[in-house]
Formats: sequence, structure tokens, C-alpha cells
Amino acid sequence: MRVLLLGFGNVGQKMAEILTVERDRHPGLRRLGFSTAGIFTRSHGALAGDVDLAAALERVRSGGRFEPGYPGFSTLAPLDAVRTLDYEVLVELTVLSVRERGEPALSYVRAALDRGRDVVTANKGPIAFAYRELESLARKRGVRLLHESTVMDGAPLFGLVRSSLRGCTLLGLSGILNSTTNFVLNEMERGVALESAVRTAQAEGFAEADPSHDLEGWDAAAKITVLANALLGASQTPFDVQREGITGVTPARVQEALRAGRRLKLVCRATREGNEVRTRCGLEEVAVDHPFATLSGNGSVLRIETDLMGPIVVAQEEPTLSDTAYGVLNDLLTLADESRHRGFELA
Amino acid sequence: MRVLLLGFGNVGQKMAEILTVERDRHPGLRRLGFSTAGIFTRSHGALAGDVDLAAALERVRSGGRFEPGYPGFSTLAPLDAVRTLDYEVLVELTVLSVRERGEPALSYVRAALDRGRDVVTANKGPIAFAYRELESLARKRGVRLLHESTVMDGAPLFGLVRSSLRGCTLLGLSGILNSTTNFVLNEMERGVALESAVRTAQAEGFAEADPSHDLEGWDAAAKITVLANALLGASQTPFDVQREGITGVTPARVQEALRAGRRLKLVCRATREGNEVRTRCGLEEVAVDHPFATLSGNGSVLRIETDLMGPIVVAQEEPTLSDTAYGVLNDLLTLADESRHRGFELA
Repeated sequence: MRVLLLGFGNVGQKMAEILTVERDRHPGLRRLGFSTAGIFTRSHGALAGDVDLAAALERVRSGGRFEPGYPGFSTLAPLDAVRTLDYEVLVELTVLSVRERGEPALSYVRAALDRGRDVVTANKGPIAFAYRELESLARKRGVRLLHESTVMDGAPLFGLVRSSLRGCTLLGLSGILNSTTNFVLNEMERGVALESAVRTAQAEGFAEADPSHDLEGWDAAAKITVLANALLGASQTPFDVQREGITGVTPARVQEALRAGRRLKLVCRATREGNEVRTRCGLEEVAVDHPFATLSGNGSVLRIETDLMGPIVVAQEEPTLSDTAYGVLNDLLTLADESRHRGFELA
Repeated sequence: MRVLLLGFGNVGQKMAEILTVERDRHPGLRRLGFSTAGIFTRSHGALAGDVDLAAALERVRSGGRFEPGYPGFSTLAPLDAVRTLDYEVLVELTVLSVRERGEPALSYVRAALDRGRDVVTANKGPIAFAYRELESLARKRGVRLLHESTVMDGAPLFGLVRSSLRGCTLLGLSGILNSTTNFVLNEMERGVALESAVRTAQAEGFAEADPSHDLEGWDAAAKITVLANALLGASQTPFDVQREGITGVTPARVQEALRAGRRLKLVCRATREGNEVRTRCGLEEVAVDHPFATLSGNGSVLRIETDLMGPIVVAQEEPTLSDTAYGVLNDLLTLADESRHRGFELA
């Protein structure tokens, strides 16, 4: 399987590490043939051709860049790379921009699908802004658009529904999908102020340098949009979500709820109502023994309601970078397994 | 897909109801072609040939039996039916006997696989007593042995691991897998005596007439054996599980734990230790906000630890009979989807 990598930040580097340095420790990955047709980064330069993934990883981790003279150095623009390089699967790991409505990732994904290439994306943008168009394009070209790691890192949600809840009709989804806000709300229960809790989350590495994307609910809104579009057949964008963040919350409010036996949580919901899907992301008080309340600080949880079963709850405890990287690898394994039927070779 | 049904108790009847009376309400099942080659029951007689499933369901639900003169009435022994009737998939829904080491279900399943028929079983016996032999036989004959509903009813565990955790190595499994004991322990926290709690569970329909199978931990032991055999490559029987039940527990003990901020639970564990798998099922005190403690009365929960991700927790809330029936239907959908590649027709 020949892969073009767009984005080589924490997730891309972790994935490269698992596939090279750690490979022998993960027997489940042995059957994943993998070669790299290019690596395009925002701030470390770009490579095209037969890329030595282990060497590229070492280069970036030691603070180096891909610059003129480095084997395979490329000056192609990423979109031109998507359109012209020789690869089978585009792995899109760039960063979501809500303001740019999922661009430029959306254009990369569209161009790859249009060329008849499979796409795996960890970027919520394409799914949150243009799922129906992209999915229809993928079907027309006979290729796949997979995105397991867009929500709850590598915890299997889309694969679960695809493989094990196929016979069910999904009625509604609800959950806690943003770990920064969940961590901050937990800290406030102990009397810590919002700003101070955010600084701790940043120091522990799971909040971005600019935390407004999390605190204003945009990350959570993008995730519930991805779920609504991919699992409930909606055709929404994050701007359609009835959205509330936690910027106005004080420790006093959180502690008042706690004294009443309840915890304040930023809960996302997508609910089928007739032919419509309603999406929201807002503050809710839940009982202290509710699965949404007992979630660990930086975990995530999703409750799935269907027509044929009682609710199923999937929770992810203590996720690490490895979780997101695994979500991408899991999608690649899905393609590898399917590609046997489509008759192209594993490397 | 032509199915031979062994067992037509609550689960079989609910499945028949979903496939006939309720069918139009479940669009996800539309593509499941289904015809019935026979129904063999313990106490209602047997049918063979082209069985009218809706009529058979009505007959049994109205208190009737399949007797001489009823269309398709059969005097075949079940094992002979498995060996001689014209069907594609054996659906095994008979009741587990630990004492009989999974028999007679085990012989039915072995005979069907040996004839080159796919098997779906909701009976833990074959998987808990002879998984390795049966799985190897299935592989040799090019057929499938599926058993999603043996643990946590229809909640997707085996499908999840098969489809979404393939790249991971499973390190350990733990959970609460028996709802009767969980319900009884919860009741004891309110001061209710064991016998009285069991009677309530029986009245609500989720404890058997003879509750010793649950209370002595045999049901839980069979389930952790199924998980260990199917997911961790073990080759054990329920007799290999270090097993403890709840018959010696008193309300006083449960309440003492509660006062210390902990809840007494019957926890199952299967842990990889080198090339060995250790299985146990015993009483443990867990913190009141642990996912095992907040589980609803008759729910189940499983925590999955892997090499590549933080722990994943799957919980099932308020399961109904429909959940178990759906687990069987989900396995049939898996076969239907695969059988396109094997080239046999959906009915």
C-alpha cells in the first residue's frame, strides 16, 4: 500500500514511529504493507518519491527540516502532489480550520477521491463540511473515504457501526467529545479558575496553544457534525450546531451543581427527528453516577441509541497520541483487507 | 439465506418476531434474505421443510405445539436434522449446560461445520468448551462460526475486535458480565436479602428459574471463557476459571463496602501473561465512580486493554430480549455480506 502523507505533526510522527521503530512490537500490524510516496508538512518542508519513513521521522524529531539537498526534497504544492504523485492512499493529517470551512484539507481529499484514490483522514474538516459530496464522489469512483480518528481518536465508532450495528437504525447519539473542556470543568470542581485549568491542560499537551477552538465548543461541534453526517445521514456543518462553550462557566457554578449531586458537562447530541437531524453541543448537569459524569479527565464517551437494542456506551479512557495514530492505521488495515477483493497488491 | 433453527425459546421467538411482524420497522434488515428450513424445539415439537416462520411463531405464542398434522411436522432428532436437512446456516439457540460440557449444542455445531455449513450460536457452550477445535474445523471447511450474542447479548464485542481492533494485540479483558448477580448485589446495598433480590430478578424475567447457575458464577465463568478463547487465543473451559460466586455475600458486607466509598461487584478478568491466559471471576470492591460501579442494574460492561490504545470500555444499558436476538441477526448480516463474495444467493 503506497501512501501519500499530508501533515507530519504529532499524529503523523507517532504513526511513522509505530510503523518503523515499534513495528516488531505490534504483531497485528505485520500484514500491513506500507510504503511512502511523499510527506508534505506545514513547517518542515516536503518529500516526494520513494521516501524512507524511518529516516524522515528521525530528521524531524531531531529538529531538522526537509530542505534542498535532502533525498527526495520537493517543492510541489500539496494540492499538486495529490493530483500528480504516484500513490494509492491519501492520508490527510492536516489541522482543521472551522473558519476556512475545512479548507485546504477538503480540496486535497476531493482531488484524491476524484483521481480514484482511497482517502484516510484524521481531519474533521472534510467530513464536517462536505461529507455527502465526498462520499458520493468516493462511491462514483469506487474508492473509500475513511475517518475513524476524527472522533474519539482511535476508539472504534465508525467501524463499529459499519460492521456491528448495520442492521440497526441509529436514533440518536450523545456524548462528551472534547477532552480539554471536560478536564477544565473537572478542575473547576476543585475550585481552580478556568485560565489556570487551561494552562495545566496545555502543559499536559492535550489543549492547543490557542484554546478558544475547544473552550467555545467548536471542536465538539465539529465532532458532533461528523457523527451526524456520517452516521445519521445529515448534511450539516459545524455552523448548524446549536453551540455553547464553557467560557462563561465559573468554579462557583460548577460547585453549586456538585453540591446538588450533579456535574456540569459539555454534552453533544445528535437526534433524529422525522427526516431531520438536530445537533447541539451545550452545558448539561448530569447525575454523579451517569456514564458521562464518571468519565476520566481527558477521556471521551459516546452513547448510541438504536431501534433494535438498548443503548450502547463506548468510552475511551486515558487516550494517548498512539490512539489517534492507531485510528489511522485501523483505516489502512480496513483498506488492506478490502483491497484483496479489489485485486491490488500489498507492498 | 436458508436457516435451520435449533431452539425456539424467548430469543428464537423474538428473532422470528423481528423478521416477520416487525420487519417493516427495521430498514437495516431489509437486505437480509431469510427462509427457514426447520425449527427444532425442546418442548414444542419440531418442523422441517419450507417453514412458515410467522405462522410457527403465532402457533407457539398462542400456547400451541408443532404436532402430527401440523404442516411440516417432523420426528427427526435434532442431530439428524443438522446432518440431513437442506440449509445454509445453522442458528443454534439451545440452552447452555455446563455440567454436560456444552452438549448437545457442541455436537450440533460440530456436525454443521463438518457439513460445510455456517454456524451462528447464541449458546456459550460450544465456544466455552471447544472453541479451538470448532474454529479450526470451520477454517478447514471454509465456513464461519459466529457467536456475537454469547456475551453481553447483542452488544458488539466480537465484531468490534474483528473489524476495528484487528491491528491491536489484546492484553486483557475485564468486566461485569452477569446481570442477575449485579442486580442482586445492588439490591443488597439497600438492605434486601439475597433470596428476596433473586425473586425480584426472576419476576422481572432476567434470572432463571434455577438461579444457582448465575449465583455460583457459572454463567460469568462461561462468558469470560468465551472471551478468553475467542479473543485471547486461550483454550480453556469454564472449569479452568478461578471462580467465586455471590452466595456467601450478605447485605452487611455490601453495605460496609459502600460506607467506605466502594461497591462490591462480581468482576470477570482474562489476562495475557506471557503465553498463558489467566481467567478469574470473583468479588472485587471498586470505587463508586468506576465504570463497573455505575453500571445500571441489569447492564453489562467490558473493558478492553490493548497494546496500541488506552483502554476502551463498552457498556450495555437496559438490555432487552431484542438485544440478544439482534446479536444473532447481526451475525446473519455478517454472513450475508460475506456470502456475496462466496457467490451464494440471498433468498
